[in-house]
Amino acid sequence: MQIGAQDRIQSIERGFAVLLVFDAERRNPSLIEIAKATQLSRPAVRRILLTLQHLGYVRPTGGSHWELTPRVLTIGQHFTTSSAVVAVSEPHMSRLVEETQESASLSAMDGSDVVYLARVPAKHVLNINATAGTRVSAHATSMGRVLLAAQPPEFVEQYLAEHGLRPLTRHTVTNPDQFRNTLARVRERGWSLVSEEREIGLIAASAPIRNHTGQVIAALSSSTSTGRMSPERVERDLVPVLVRIADEISEELGA
Amino acid sequence: MQIGAQDRIQSIERGFAVLLVFDAERRNPSLIEIAKATQLSRPAVRRILLTLQHLGYVRPTGGSHWELTPRVLTIGQHFTTSSAVVAVSEPHMSRLVEETQESASLSAMDGSDVVYLARVPAKHVLNINATAGTRVSAHATSMGRVLLAAQPPEFVEQYLAEHGLRPLTRHTVTNPDQFRNTLARVRERGWSLVSEEREIGLIAASAPIRNHTGQVIAALSSSTSTGRMSPERVERDLVPVLVRIADEISEELGA
Repeated sequence: MQIGAQDRIQSIERGFAVLLVFDAERRNPSLIEIAKATQLSRPAVRRILLTLQHLGYVRPTGGSHWELTPRVLTIGQHFTTSSAVVAVSEPHMSRLVEETQESASLSAMDGSDVVYLARVPAKHVLNINATAGTRVSAHATSMGRVLLAAQPPEFVEQYLAEHGLRPLTRHTVTNPDQFRNTLARVRERGWSLVSEEREIGLIAASAPIRNHTGQVIAALSSSTSTGRMSPERVERDLVPVLVRIADEISEELGA
Repeated sequence: MQIGAQDRIQSIERGFAVLLVFDAERRNPSLIEIAKATQLSRPAVRRILLTLQHLGYVRPTGGSHWELTPRVLTIGQHFTTSSAVVAVSEPHMSRLVEETQESASLSAMDGSDVVYLARVPAKHVLNINATAGTRVSAHATSMGRVLLAAQPPEFVEQYLAEHGLRPLTRHTVTNPDQFRNTLARVRERGWSLVSEEREIGLIAASAPIRNHTGQVIAALSSSTSTGRMSPERVERDLVPVLVRIADEISEELGA
């Protein structure tokens, strides 16, 4: 749904625009840098920063530079505690890690990306560097394929038209027809296995989690390294446990 | 610093007030419930919700009810990727878990609370239920004591006056003089050990992390259960590893 400009409050949009300027590339932006990044005037940015400072989300670090405070984590925490799927899944994810000794992740679609909702790392040194909130492209991950496979065909076609199938490694499926067939196979089998299409050495399997209406609302995944497990072994040893636990989560959600 | 009302933008404050209504108790509030919780008019709440929906942070769930979307996790993720202390600490935390087989946490003060910045759980079934963004009272945790011990005396006195020392278990230190002595000891030894003051069965040790100016900006902690380790064993086996790794993080931050 498009929401008309007259129904929106511009200063809220600007407030978030300023908050999101802070990232790995701009940890301590100056007021001038923020004004440039948001295309807002300096006085406007100054008032927004003072408002966000009053709310406790940013603080000055000297020399007209600013940084985020840990309080911004609270906002995501409200999602985590208010989301039924995260609350229900977490103990099951720990069980998945216990049974498989491999890392477990939970994710959902946000627009055309996949967002990690929760993650329980295994004890290995080699672990994906991802925390709740991390975004990844959908097409080259097993989580993304499980989530895309559950979308209507128009959604997938729009994804292909807008994003294409950018190769992340030499193994990434980049042919649209092959990709459509892969999604059909995911739908058919009820799980997805992706080996080294996102990153060399990384292999993961995912299964869908459904809510009480049967709709796929998240993907549960188990990931490991090709050094520890071949695709054949992932399919034989990990997938059955993964699918069983995903089904148990769905059941608890009323599916 | 107090920021005058004339320097703040009220609609941004209201936007966040609406966003924070969603929590474990109110996962799917209705527009009317949100208006009640924020003391805003229904038309005002409606425009704020439409703005937040346009930004992708909330969505309607039917019957005039609303929910948060995973996109709110992105805001916290910006803190995680923009925070030098989190970026530098994470690999060291994994090392701490590897060396000790116990869970590692990183936290910072936010107002009078302690906020988890990151957490690497151990493989045990018994684990604290905490993710980045989880807030806890400072006084009954080893992380809080390390962080309070680094604050000026006025800060601690204000904490005592405003929050007191609410007992969480029968072991919680509730006598202000004893508490001040405990903080002095933490400052002296350079670490804190708290056994069963936050929760029966839970035992944790913490050490400070300093930035390039020598200021304590975070606490690193290692936590376990009293079933697995006695306080004596935590002091003998965990604390030296913890203090060494905390110092290595500080060094990497330029301390």
